[in-house]
Amino acid sequence: MQRTVYHLMATTTPANSAAQPDADAAITFTLADAPLFALTRELSDLDAVQELLQWDQETQMPSGANAVRAEQVGTLEGIVHERGTAAALGHAIVEAEAALAAQSARFTEADRSLVRNARRDFDQKTKLPADYVRERAAATSAAWSTWQSARANKDFGEFAPSLTHIVDLTRRGAQYLNPNAEPYEVLFDLFEPGMTLATATAALDALRAATVPLLKRVQAAQQIDNSFLKGDYPEAKQLAFSRELLGILGYDFTRGRLDTTAHPFATGIGSPYDDRLTTRIHVDDVVSCIMSVMHECGHAHYEQGIDPALSRTPIGGGTSSGIHESQSRTWENIIGRSDAFWSAHYPALQAAFPEPFARVAVTDFVRSINRAEGSLIRVEADELTYNLHIIIRFEIERDLMAGKIQVQDLPAIWNQKYQDYLGVTPPDAGDGVLQDVHWSAGLFGYFPTYSLGNCYAAQFNAKMRADIPDTDARLAAGETAFVLEWQHANIHRWGSIYQGDDLCRRVTGEGLNPTYLITYLTEKYERVYGLK
Amino acid sequence: MQRTVYHLMATTTPANSAAQPDADAAITFTLADAPLFALTRELSDLDAVQELLQWDQETQMPSGANAVRAEQVGTLEGIVHERGTAAALGHAIVEAEAALAAQSARFTEADRSLVRNARRDFDQKTKLPADYVRERAAATSAAWSTWQSARANKDFGEFAPSLTHIVDLTRRGAQYLNPNAEPYEVLFDLFEPGMTLATATAALDALRAATVPLLKRVQAAQQIDNSFLKGDYPEAKQLAFSRELLGILGYDFTRGRLDTTAHPFATGIGSPYDDRLTTRIHVDDVVSCIMSVMHECGHAHYEQGIDPALSRTPIGGGTSSGIHESQSRTWENIIGRSDAFWSAHYPALQAAFPEPFARVAVTDFVRSINRAEGSLIRVEADELTYNLHIIIRFEIERDLMAGKIQVQDLPAIWNQKYQDYLGVTPPDAGDGVLQDVHWSAGLFGYFPTYSLGNCYAAQFNAKMRADIPDTDARLAAGETAFVLEWQHANIHRWGSIYQGDDLCRRVTGEGLNPTYLITYLTEKYERVYGLK
Repeated sequence: MQRTVYHLMATTTPANSAAQPDADAAITFTLADAPLFALTRELSDLDAVQELLQWDQETQMPSGANAVRAEQVGTLEGIVHERGTAAALGHAIVEAEAALAAQSARFTEADRSLVRNARRDFDQKTKLPADYVRERAAATSAAWSTWQSARANKDFGEFAPSLTHIVDLTRRGAQYLNPNAEPYEVLFDLFEPGMTLATATAALDALRAATVPLLKRVQAAQQIDNSFLKGDYPEAKQLAFSRELLGILGYDFTRGRLDTTAHPFATGIGSPYDDRLTTRIHVDDVVSCIMSVMHECGHAHYEQGIDPALSRTPIGGGTSSGIHESQSRTWENIIGRSDAFWSAHYPALQAAFPEPFARVAVTDFVRSINRAEGSLIRVEADELTYNLHIIIRFEIERDLMAGKIQVQDLPAIWNQKYQDYLGVTPPDAGDGVLQDVHWSAGLFGYFPTYSLGNCYAAQFNAKMRADIPDTDARLAAGETAFVLEWQHANIHRWGSIYQGDDLCRRVTGEGLNPTYLITYLTEKYERVYGLK
Repeated sequence: MQRTVYHLMATTTPANSAAQPDADAAITFTLADAPLFALTRELSDLDAVQELLQWDQETQMPSGANAVRAEQVGTLEGIVHERGTAAALGHAIVEAEAALAAQSARFTEADRSLVRNARRDFDQKTKLPADYVRERAAATSAAWSTWQSARANKDFGEFAPSLTHIVDLTRRGAQYLNPNAEPYEVLFDLFEPGMTLATATAALDALRAATVPLLKRVQAAQQIDNSFLKGDYPEAKQLAFSRELLGILGYDFTRGRLDTTAHPFATGIGSPYDDRLTTRIHVDDVVSCIMSVMHECGHAHYEQGIDPALSRTPIGGGTSSGIHESQSRTWENIIGRSDAFWSAHYPALQAAFPEPFARVAVTDFVRSINRAEGSLIRVEADELTYNLHIIIRFEIERDLMAGKIQVQDLPAIWNQKYQDYLGVTPPDAGDGVLQDVHWSAGLFGYFPTYSLGNCYAAQFNAKMRADIPDTDARLAAGETAFVLEWQHANIHRWGSIYQGDDLCRRVTGEGLNPTYLITYLTEKYERVYGLK
């Protein structure tokens, strides 16, 4: 739901990682003295500097500095591109690949993953012609302005020519990266490397097939009252409670900080030692802030938990968009909307905001934050329907990239799908097909990772509960550290050593399986809405 | 008194700037299309990024990130060094110098200054052998730790071997930069380019000769009571008043921001659009915070006032340490400790802190913040005696660099000078010769610019009052914008186009003249202490 800036362009490619290292063994690099190590170390540091510039711009920078900051960012991007495409780097990768092929036993899993990601980053940067990159930058910049205007005017026709251009450019870009694959497969692989599009499609199809009828059952039931949540929650108090909540969740403030922004995000400044997050404050709605804090804390937990041995390398961040989202969704939804968690911590919320919570029972509070309904706007959607918003976008962008549908038909297709899946029809394009910024930026293939993250979250959750059967009792007793420890050991620590699906297999014994999410959602909403 | 990070290593060399541009004409570069322009633009942007990393580290960064941030900073320094010493840059400078020599009339004053500073920066970076730079970095890093320990132990003997090493290294460094000049002249020129050491020495000698007897007269008079200043000033209220005060001073918050740090500073993130400052908060002492805010605001005023045409060039910052300090001292001392200013704004202070100021008359308040006394610690010294602290350091480091005195004799020399000039003797080396960090960092030649800044401040002030005879009346009426306008037009706008002494001549009609400061201090302290 909230943007994470973690590895939006994830950086891994498929590889066989047959040998699994001991879970407790130290992570080491035989390549530590290789030229590739020093060259990628520099690129990692520059990446961290770029993250800091972005964080500063969104949280601290005075407004008057916008234009000059853009110039500074551009200069740094130029240097990063120059060094990220340098012949010396290409040679260092070839040399490392040759060493790995010739003497595989000398090297570690971390070595192999480092080379895999270095190769992938290098190829992505060098395969796109400079002219194409320039044309695309100009087109997306123009399209963003056009989209802003079109959305304000609720006029899809205004945006259609720009979007047509962006779609063509995006398809061309995918062809440069891999002329032998379908464009949408190439784009999807940028965000969820190692997972086939077929796997993702099967998961999302199953999720849709289960969610649409479940939502209809919910819609037929008595709706939950959440009207008492609207209130008066001063900004300073929300911020203080957010910090208290982060303490409860085990967020390490010596290695991070909390600020406020219009659009919350979490960002890592290059290591597990500096992972910052932001939240949004609406003075009439504290739940929005709470859920945003728990979501971004999940992202920050991931990065704070990565083994420091991986810092300043191409595998020092979270491994994919989907896995990252699984961690944010675990804390936001599976824990953050559970009876168990709030039975321990609701008194803290009541103490912070006696009005209204002193007069609301914890069970009513938890029900209220689990209200589901067919709605128009993705970023405001609930845990149940959110995936349907995503699936609609996924189906549309996949068909668009395959040439099966045309840009001019998008409003009709969009509205039909909203009616079919969610039971609502947008009154205009502003609250319909024009609501998201992603496509104007040429971002295709990213949307599905939100729902794949929800699938992973439920699958990991099932495994954690198998490992720790008294999870709910411990949550209800106020504990959270045991969850974080389980995540650190099983997921976080490994950074990008394992690709998403590989990691999932290693942790749960099987690849992505949407059944866990379907079961979780079905049980939860049957319980919350008393459907049985 | 407070550290400024503005161009601590100022970047200009002597040049004849005979033709003075029209004060109102637009600043332009004929060189805008030259390779040198693009190359130095990139270096300027990288410099801004380095400033941001530093600012973040001191104000926002979580403590756990210290070690990894040092690595990131090191990576960036490596890139800056590589690009700042590149053969292509050397060629571009030679090419620009040739063009300026061949067709002088085609180029502007800004062109000439840009080439002058680019040459100076390049020479400074390329003349120091890499081995020397490494040795020096290691030595200063070790010396800093030793100094910390020695100061805590009040044991100069512990620090002496390190300092001896640093002095040797610093002398060698100066020889690399210019083997034909005395080392201390070379070092001084790094901070106050274009001013001869003879000029500075004459000014500081005159200042000492006038200040020592003036202090003795003050010491013979009835001391001013400032005991009522100690009180209880909550941090949030000090910060709120600081922001109010910055508004009064005309600081532009759309192009800057205020944070708190242990050691206040002002820093420019590469342009007049982003100039941030910090203050310190002692909860028992609001005057410390007020003076720190006015001081740093003076630095920020300078950078915010530089013509945007100079942004992202080698002449886009303040021109020298002394000129920069003149601007901070003008706002902190000449305005910030004046009856005129406080007669307008004391009610705001009284409203913010009714206790104690509701019961203190404005005249008593202003007297209290002008109390002078012989004291041991430079950073806590008053406006009158501060220069004596500086002059002691100047005389010692000059003689040390010339080999006239030896490191092991410093404590005795230090204590004798404190007795002679200030009438006090340090009880130990911790409050004596070990109190400042500068020498452990190899920083020699910087101290004198503090007092030269005070000289410039008084000289500019005299000229402003000649131009605007009703300055005091307007200050007393609550105006400050007219001062800032005068500074913008005469000093700030020009960035580093003119070197310090040149700028002074242009503004006041004569080079540095300590008489203005001597007159100002004499009149002020005779009045404050009723010496006539």
